[in-house]
Amino acid sequence: MKQKTTLKQLSKELNVSVSTVSKALNNSSEISTKTIKRVKELAKLYGYKPNPVAVSLKRNKTFTIGILIPDILNHFFAKVLHGIEEQASLKGYKIITCLTNESLDKEKEYLEMLEYNKVDGIIAALSKETQVKEDFSHFKNFKSLDKPLVLFDRITDEIDCDKVLVDDQKAAQDVFEYLKEQNRKNIAVVSTLPHLSVIVARLQGVMTSANQTSTNVKTLMISETKDAESKINDFFKNESFDALIGLDETAASIAINAAKHYQVKIPKDLAIVGFTDGLLAKNAYPKMSVVSQHAIELGKNTVKILLERIENKTLKPKRFIQPTTLIKRASSE
Amino acid sequence: MKQKTTLKQLSKELNVSVSTVSKALNNSSEISTKTIKRVKELAKLYGYKPNPVAVSLKRNKTFTIGILIPDILNHFFAKVLHGIEEQASLKGYKIITCLTNESLDKEKEYLEMLEYNKVDGIIAALSKETQVKEDFSHFKNFKSLDKPLVLFDRITDEIDCDKVLVDDQKAAQDVFEYLKEQNRKNIAVVSTLPHLSVIVARLQGVMTSANQTSTNVKTLMISETKDAESKINDFFKNESFDALIGLDETAASIAINAAKHYQVKIPKDLAIVGFTDGLLAKNAYPKMSVVSQHAIELGKNTVKILLERIENKTLKPKRFIQPTTLIKRASSE
Repeated sequence: MKQKTTLKQLSKELNVSVSTVSKALNNSSEISTKTIKRVKELAKLYGYKPNPVAVSLKRNKTFTIGILIPDILNHFFAKVLHGIEEQASLKGYKIITCLTNESLDKEKEYLEMLEYNKVDGIIAALSKETQVKEDFSHFKNFKSLDKPLVLFDRITDEIDCDKVLVDDQKAAQDVFEYLKEQNRKNIAVVSTLPHLSVIVARLQGVMTSANQTSTNVKTLMISETKDAESKINDFFKNESFDALIGLDETAASIAINAAKHYQVKIPKDLAIVGFTDGLLAKNAYPKMSVVSQHAIELGKNTVKILLERIENKTLKPKRFIQPTTLIKRASSE
Repeated sequence: MKQKTTLKQLSKELNVSVSTVSKALNNSSEISTKTIKRVKELAKLYGYKPNPVAVSLKRNKTFTIGILIPDILNHFFAKVLHGIEEQASLKGYKIITCLTNESLDKEKEYLEMLEYNKVDGIIAALSKETQVKEDFSHFKNFKSLDKPLVLFDRITDEIDCDKVLVDDQKAAQDVFEYLKEQNRKNIAVVSTLPHLSVIVARLQGVMTSANQTSTNVKTLMISETKDAESKINDFFKNESFDALIGLDETAASIAINAAKHYQVKIPKDLAIVGFTDGLLAKNAYPKMSVVSQHAIELGKNTVKILLERIENKTLKPKRFIQPTTLIKRASSE
């Protein structure tokens, strides 16, 4: 039996993308007359017939998703973005990535640009400035176009849409309980990024568990990253503790170095647990126990949820909590 | 004297982007009739007059640049991208970022998409697959549209365009000479990414200097990243050397940990120098000496060169070598 000719076969033979073939067959103004002619001639030669179900599904779709990322130097966002790209590509979608660089104005401009580029939906984490100024009007306008929006990690209750987030508070409680089970008495908590909402949530988690167990906790919140090292060294000199939770990867990494500097034995005299299973954790000596947020998986999940929503816009918006894992390594075992 | 009204003021007052105001004033079909009406009414009220020079300069421009990035989990590319965004934004340009994920097909599809989106130019680093298969036809077609293209880091002689690159060979020679000046006799070279063109260039640099000075060099090139740690540990056990060059940041970081494991004193008995001034180098203990490629600066330079080219398409294509710096820290001093 002769196999049906597909868009993919035509695209391969013509050395253009599937989307160009499809647009050319639909006489899109985006495609040059020359290309339309080439595509139609080959389609005719091969007796190509569009699949009517596919046609109805694909109508009015660009198979493109717009992504708003606040900070590409943050490895967590880079990993989420990587996961988004992998899942989107698997499902035949392209992604257009826009970097807002933590600016509300850029977020507005890029959202507007994505509107012109007619994406099928948006995946976004809010910029720091957007969260501080609490200005969400641009997202509300975008939503009113009936375009699906999925927010992740940096979210707000002000926008009614699908949300994907990490339960940072719960993850921090898990770390606390793990250290208490080891009979650690004096727990210290350190962060170099105390202004971020995720760090606030983690600190809340530790404090909730500390209150429940009547445990005293020493905290060091450093707002100027450049002072982090000397402040953490001073903290080691002046305080005593047998467990330390680094609420961010950098804080935990500096703490491991400070322990080496003061010849504190890890994990015997001091157990250290950090957040984010990044390069620093994996390359630490001893290797660092951490909470992994499964950022790549989280990115994939944002795409799955967006595509469900594109297929069915009447679904009730949902809140998906990405599970975390406490990875136990030599810094605490 | 009454100040002239600018597009920026109109955009601020209307809470839309400068590009929307400009398009609305030019009756662009991208803008809704409602917005065109709002913009024109306010422009009339304020007596807005377009600057004729600006109008002629801006005609046929989208003020958007397309970026092709092969791997966003590579911190070097993330930093370059961050630099591109900063410089583009400073000059009033938006960027559309596309992740090719080291795939030739994706590179082709995204380049085609950027063509539809009518960007003013492209900045790209080639995907691994493109370099292996040596298929550059898509870039040649794109160039034939008379659109400027700037290649960086992963480049090819096959495409006639502006190029920005790091002189990795020269940088490696500098490291070698620095270690020889310290009277280090036995130099080892380690990499966990020997297949990358930049690593090949660095190794060539070391070998050139070694030949010139009749120095024996021990090399360990590890093609499977997951074996890196045990292989580097074995290398420490079986070989003796008083200086080690890590051709990538991971290799140098694992070597520092191996030295600690075997209680080799750094830098007294072993000097270690790595490549890339990333998180691992800054957070190593002792802190790692490295070659910095100034990735953010490199990103900014790609934009400067692209914008020059957009203004003057008749310029002869140039090759810009981004200078590197050897940052000396406690792992070697």
